[in-house]
Amino acid sequence: MKILVLGGDGFCGWPTSLHLSSAGHDVVIVDNLSRRQIDVLLEVESLTPIAPMSTRLATWKKVSGKTIKFELVDIAQQYQLLLATIKKHKPDVIIHFAEQRSAPYSMKSSYTKRYTVDNNVNATNNVLCALVESGVDAHLVHLGTMGVYGYGWTGSAPIPEGYLEVGINTPEGEISREILHPANPGSIYHMTKTLDQLMFAFYAKNDSIRVTDLHQGIVWGTQTPQTILDEKLINRFDYDGDYGTVLNRFLMQAAIGYPLTVHGTGGQTRAFIHIRDSVRCIELAIKNPPKKGEKPTIFNQVTEVFRVRDLAKLVSELTGVKINNLPNPRNEAVENELKVDNHKFLALGLKPTTLSQGLLEEVQDVVRKYMGTVDESKIPATSLWRK
Amino acid sequence: MKILVLGGDGFCGWPTSLHLSSAGHDVVIVDNLSRRQIDVLLEVESLTPIAPMSTRLATWKKVSGKTIKFELVDIAQQYQLLLATIKKHKPDVIIHFAEQRSAPYSMKSSYTKRYTVDNNVNATNNVLCALVESGVDAHLVHLGTMGVYGYGWTGSAPIPEGYLEVGINTPEGEISREILHPANPGSIYHMTKTLDQLMFAFYAKNDSIRVTDLHQGIVWGTQTPQTILDEKLINRFDYDGDYGTVLNRFLMQAAIGYPLTVHGTGGQTRAFIHIRDSVRCIELAIKNPPKKGEKPTIFNQVTEVFRVRDLAKLVSELTGVKINNLPNPRNEAVENELKVDNHKFLALGLKPTTLSQGLLEEVQDVVRKYMGTVDESKIPATSLWRK
Repeated sequence: MKILVLGGDGFCGWPTSLHLSSAGHDVVIVDNLSRRQIDVLLEVESLTPIAPMSTRLATWKKVSGKTIKFELVDIAQQYQLLLATIKKHKPDVIIHFAEQRSAPYSMKSSYTKRYTVDNNVNATNNVLCALVESGVDAHLVHLGTMGVYGYGWTGSAPIPEGYLEVGINTPEGEISREILHPANPGSIYHMTKTLDQLMFAFYAKNDSIRVTDLHQGIVWGTQTPQTILDEKLINRFDYDGDYGTVLNRFLMQAAIGYPLTVHGTGGQTRAFIHIRDSVRCIELAIKNPPKKGEKPTIFNQVTEVFRVRDLAKLVSELTGVKINNLPNPRNEAVENELKVDNHKFLALGLKPTTLSQGLLEEVQDVVRKYMGTVDESKIPATSLWRK
Repeated sequence: MKILVLGGDGFCGWPTSLHLSSAGHDVVIVDNLSRRQIDVLLEVESLTPIAPMSTRLATWKKVSGKTIKFELVDIAQQYQLLLATIKKHKPDVIIHFAEQRSAPYSMKSSYTKRYTVDNNVNATNNVLCALVESGVDAHLVHLGTMGVYGYGWTGSAPIPEGYLEVGINTPEGEISREILHPANPGSIYHMTKTLDQLMFAFYAKNDSIRVTDLHQGIVWGTQTPQTILDEKLINRFDYDGDYGTVLNRFLMQAAIGYPLTVHGTGGQTRAFIHIRDSVRCIELAIKNPPKKGEKPTIFNQVTEVFRVRDLAKLVSELTGVKINNLPNPRNEAVENELKVDNHKFLALGLKPTTLSQGLLEEVQDVVRKYMGTVDESKIPATSLWRK
């Protein structure tokens, strides 16, 4: 299949592009390189060395014999170029990763709040609009987040995959309705993904656009079977307070012998998935598109749930580094339960990589190998959720 | 109170500004005059003669002795100017009308779809962001739409005012939750108002911004007790296929002796409110703000519901002009019921103007008086909802 990967230079987009190219698809990366530019502004870098795009693509050609094309387009700002790119390549599938994806970054300042809303909403609307205008009948696969749901709606029942069956009282008794699961985002970033959902629902209904929305957990891990083939193909390992996820920051703190920072009691439960499983899920989603006229298909792209303190304990046990409790900058409940329904990907054959299996590889093959380039001052989280 | 009226040059914003100034408030209009500029692009005009802003304000000063200030700001594009304007005036209340408000216009082309999303989403996010950044503790009153709800969720029960009580099945039995009413918008314009709702919920929760969202029906009528004081204060009467609402187009068709155009069976039920009642509702909303930390207050700003065919019948009986049924460009059910809960404004003392009382005034004092300037070619609706 011909596949456009919007945001194909990023942490999820790059290994997905390689995985799909390796599987025989004709892949075109569309990116404005914004992730690299935000690094410049934040004065941070991936721990692993990220090669320029042309080097990445030439290396992939060398090791695999396969060609991935690259189109430099800002899909949020350059609508006519996006439209021309879609008309030129006539993709069967468009994978949409092209959004600002850090929750702490989205809460840093008025500028980053406004950039995140403007970029993410216009990016999504432009893609949908260009699909309608071009008449290209591509299946749109979007990377969403578990964070659209918020916590506690469904009591002890697991969070369903996107849609919730509810009862509504009427004069004739209770009636049943399937609704999009109510939203309760915890950051501006997560909020933009709740806005995306409503746009997908509208364009699916009005224009019969086929959409799959993947409600992904926190991705951990660095390498996939493709990124590991050559150091110039290596994936990002972000450890700064904005783009580094909780696990990467624990691993870095452990590596420099700094106590693992747990905010609050560490009682917040989060959903996780390894990057290797994430790219496989995307391939499964491509193989199972909704039909024209159907509402968007939603998967919970999650394989495990962990409390933050249990994650810290796992890293502490593996590395011998102690745990340090600090105030929580996020406006959220101190302790929360999280049960997630993820049966759809498991039913399609996904075999998950668990944290207990894969964590040692991260410590040995990524963190220890590249520690020479670390900037220790970037490890603490500095964004405040409220004034 | 000090009140900023964003979009105070428009059809709802202008009479609201006069009403609040008349009631003794200190009113500042903030507008980019986009409504006048869209008229230029569409080559249409209000039937009633709309004076330039400086003439409007000078006339109001002359007839009332009161001063309304004007700030030329594009709130979606000029964030720093919006922020400075809020810091300068330190309003107690900000009324937010500054959105592209025509559903047919929002469906005309890729350009108008993208403009509507970009303008409306960034306008709302900028206002919320500027309230947080400035620290000004203003109550934000937003003009939303009944169109956020869609039809048919609640069976024979009326559409509640914003929030819906639902039952959710869990292993421990059914639990009850109050959720934001599910969204099912019928156009890009209506979709942007469903996005607004999620932004209000987030900023209310995260930053304790006080928000009231008014889910308004179709506004009819032209004059208020203030706009009628001098012809230079007159309000807009739009009759073109994009900005003219169904009632205004019936009135114009009747005036030129053209059969009243009913799309489909005319079985779609719509909610209505007179502009005189609309400005009173806004005043009532200002007097009844939510407390800090509460979720947004939502009112259904509606006084009557009518089927389109019954509305046509009303106009036909009043004018003697026949009815003509044409295909419906909107993607919606042929016939739908609409029951709306509007008890909150009624409980606060609103005394509605009904269509059967007020329609004759529109025919005699507005349509017949200004018919000399009509451009008959602009009356038919031309926007298509789908390719």
